Amino acid sequence: IERKHSGKDISIFSEMTALAQQYGAVNLSQGFPDFEIDPKLKELLGKATSDNHNQYAPLTGVPLLTENLVTFNARRKKPLDLHSSEIIITPGATYGIYCALATILKPGDDVIVLEPSYDSYVPAIEVNGGKPVFVSLDKDFRPDFEMIKNAVTLQTRAIIINSPHNPSGNIWTEKDWEALWQIVKDTEIIVISDEVYDLLCYDENVFTSVMHHPHLRNRSYAVFSFGKMFHATGWKVGYVLASEELNYAFLRVHQYLSFCVNVPAQYALAGYLEVFDAAANSRMMQNKRDYLISAFSGLPFTITGKAEGGYFQTMEYHNLSDLGDRDFAVWLTKEKKVCTVPVSAFFHNGQNTGKVRFCFAKKEETIDNAAEFLRNLL
Amino acid sequence: IERKHSGKDISIFSEMTALAQQYGAVNLSQGFPDFEIDPKLKELLGKATSDNHNQYAPLTGVPLLTENLVTFNARRKKPLDLHSSEIIITPGATYGIYCALATILKPGDDVIVLEPSYDSYVPAIEVNGGKPVFVSLDKDFRPDFEMIKNAVTLQTRAIIINSPHNPSGNIWTEKDWEALWQIVKDTEIIVISDEVYDLLCYDENVFTSVMHHPHLRNRSYAVFSFGKMFHATGWKVGYVLASEELNYAFLRVHQYLSFCVNVPAQYALAGYLEVFDAAANSRMMQNKRDYLISAFSGLPFTITGKAEGGYFQTMEYHNLSDLGDRDFAVWLTKEKKVCTVPVSAFFHNGQNTGKVRFCFAKKEETIDNAAEFLRNLL
Ligand SMILES: CSCCC(=O)C(=O)O
Ligand SMILES: CSCCC(=O)C(=O)O
Repeated sequence: IERKHSGKDISIFSEMTALAQQYGAVNLSQGFPDFEIDPKLKELLGKATSDNHNQYAPLTGVPLLTENLVTFNARRKKPLDLHSSEIIITPGATYGIYCALATILKPGDDVIVLEPSYDSYVPAIEVNGGKPVFVSLDKDFRPDFEMIKNAVTLQTRAIIINSPHNPSGNIWTEKDWEALWQIVKDTEIIVISDEVYDLLCYDENVFTSVMHHPHLRNRSYAVFSFGKMFHATGWKVGYVLASEELNYAFLRVHQYLSFCVNVPAQYALAGYLEVFDAAANSRMMQNKRDYLISAFSGLPFTITGKAEGGYFQTMEYHNLSDLGDRDFAVWLTKEKKVCTVPVSAFFHNGQNTGKVRFCFAKKEETIDNAAEFLRNLL
Repeated sequence: IERKHSGKDISIFSEMTALAQQYGAVNLSQGFPDFEIDPKLKELLGKATSDNHNQYAPLTGVPLLTENLVTFNARRKKPLDLHSSEIIITPGATYGIYCALATILKPGDDVIVLEPSYDSYVPAIEVNGGKPVFVSLDKDFRPDFEMIKNAVTLQTRAIIINSPHNPSGNIWTEKDWEALWQIVKDTEIIVISDEVYDLLCYDENVFTSVMHHPHLRNRSYAVFSFGKMFHATGWKVGYVLASEELNYAFLRVHQYLSFCVNVPAQYALAGYLEVFDAAANSRMMQNKRDYLISAFSGLPFTITGKAEGGYFQTMEYHNLSDLGDRDFAVWLTKEKKVCTVPVSAFFHNGQNTGKVRFCFAKKEETIDNAAEFLRNLL
């Protein structure tokens, strides 16, 4: 069977997790928590199935879940103008991105991808007949709007944005969105915005969705993840926000791609939204970021800007090794029993960045273990 | 946004269920049970999440689930020669079919579809750049291998089979599979076999998978549904069987389409496979089929062959009305409060068949209610 995309057969995240297991390394690579989910969420899942929520739900999702998302949104620091008809529940955020691309792409369409970028974008573009056009973020992994503008052609159908950004943690501001709008306003470009870490913004950073922008909101698919919101990555439920027109086009494909989404989980998530304390959750994760940073102080890693949001902290290791980042990550796993993701994996050409990415969505004990193994480096 | 397929925006199943709700009709249209799932299965879902099975699973599925499928298969009447490396867990069977097509199709490829057929096949083919080539089943909804053979060209990339068949309930025999093999053996055609009702075969019928055929097994994706196996259609977990090579190609796409599948559900399904009594389950559903048929005796519907398997019984209504089947189904819902699916919905040209499909995966009480409403017809 011919390959339909240029991505790796086995994703870097699966590969590093397997390597961690093989060598008994502390796994700070793949983005999943090693702490327990809230017992309340577990209880709600048991209750949902007991209450007989076990058959097909409507295509757009369990109504209680979409309604509770609207209510939850209204309680946020910076709410969106949101209607439940603009929400579609999906089997995960990766699926949301893929299905949006399947909805809008025709063979030969170009899609702008800002590198470094999450590894599912390019395969999802290519399987759907599109061609990725790569634009580098600047050296601090911030958007360079001049370069983005220069990449736009008549073939450009879409651009994929990711904020908070994986791997850097950088967050788009209102000014960034406005700069993007100035580039796309005279085109028909659609924005696919991967916002799975929307609830995890640290320090003085406030999350701004593409859907906050008065014009972009009618041109965009914004993709979210309950797995990342509630630290239950294995639940594989996400949601997509779009204007009613884009939403309807999405449903045309979604209807025949997976139809609906695990119903007991949808009811549990709906219930949990009613009690979820987003501020406390974000504080907890900010503390984990800070815990990692302080546990690593004194180690020959240089933090290249604290993560503004998300699950990850990138670090340079030039005081430690001059291996390429991929070789360094493999060496660190095998020899020092600490597993990371090399940032080169987020570039299509695999260029060495001298950086690795640490996941801090971990127990303090796990972070302590990693720091101790690393101290043995010295 | 341009349409990417010729299917309906809202599937016939969603449409009829909505109509049933609107008119307060007994819903024998969409294929979902109105009886409770086994309490043991509910309990296992609660236990899975309590036991902290809430983070990403491996791409191919939770190992306990794929292993238990192998063990369960060995206990079946007619086991397959099956290895856990040939199994991929998917977020539902509709997804399995779509992802198989995304894996193998190039723009311009033809896919043979036997009509009447399930409504997701054609959109899934078209979104992936393929062209459906329609071949009618014969008047009893059995394959006509002469016609299938005549439809094969150098452009034919795949053929989609469905056994037990929706809507007729017909089951493919070993002889059918061999006849198909004779047609495809000198080609590179891949068989996508929708076998979601595999465990529901009635009377003397024994289920034969495409994977039982010694040669087709290396050329096929067979698609299954835990939702249909365990009457929990809202769980949205299925699996795909394929040779290691085809399996690997599927994973290349699946990896970037949804990555993995709801993990608590996977653990619960794994546990349930250990206690599931397939024979009793199939007997229960056969009894429901017979219950429907006898509740309907004396009514002006003609059963066109008892369903050999699955959730549905098709019936003719020519003694009752000469409306087209779609108009008849709408009339029956609105005026007589019994909702069915018109069999024309399974044909791309919507041709009237004079038949409607009743779902018998319902409580006896529900079937009684429907029969009583229908008796008021007389
Ligand atoms: C789907 S596996 C990858 C998880 C993740 O978001 C990451 O590690 O970047
Ligand atoms: C996904 S809704 C359709 C359910 C079903 O299999 C049917 O009614 O045929």
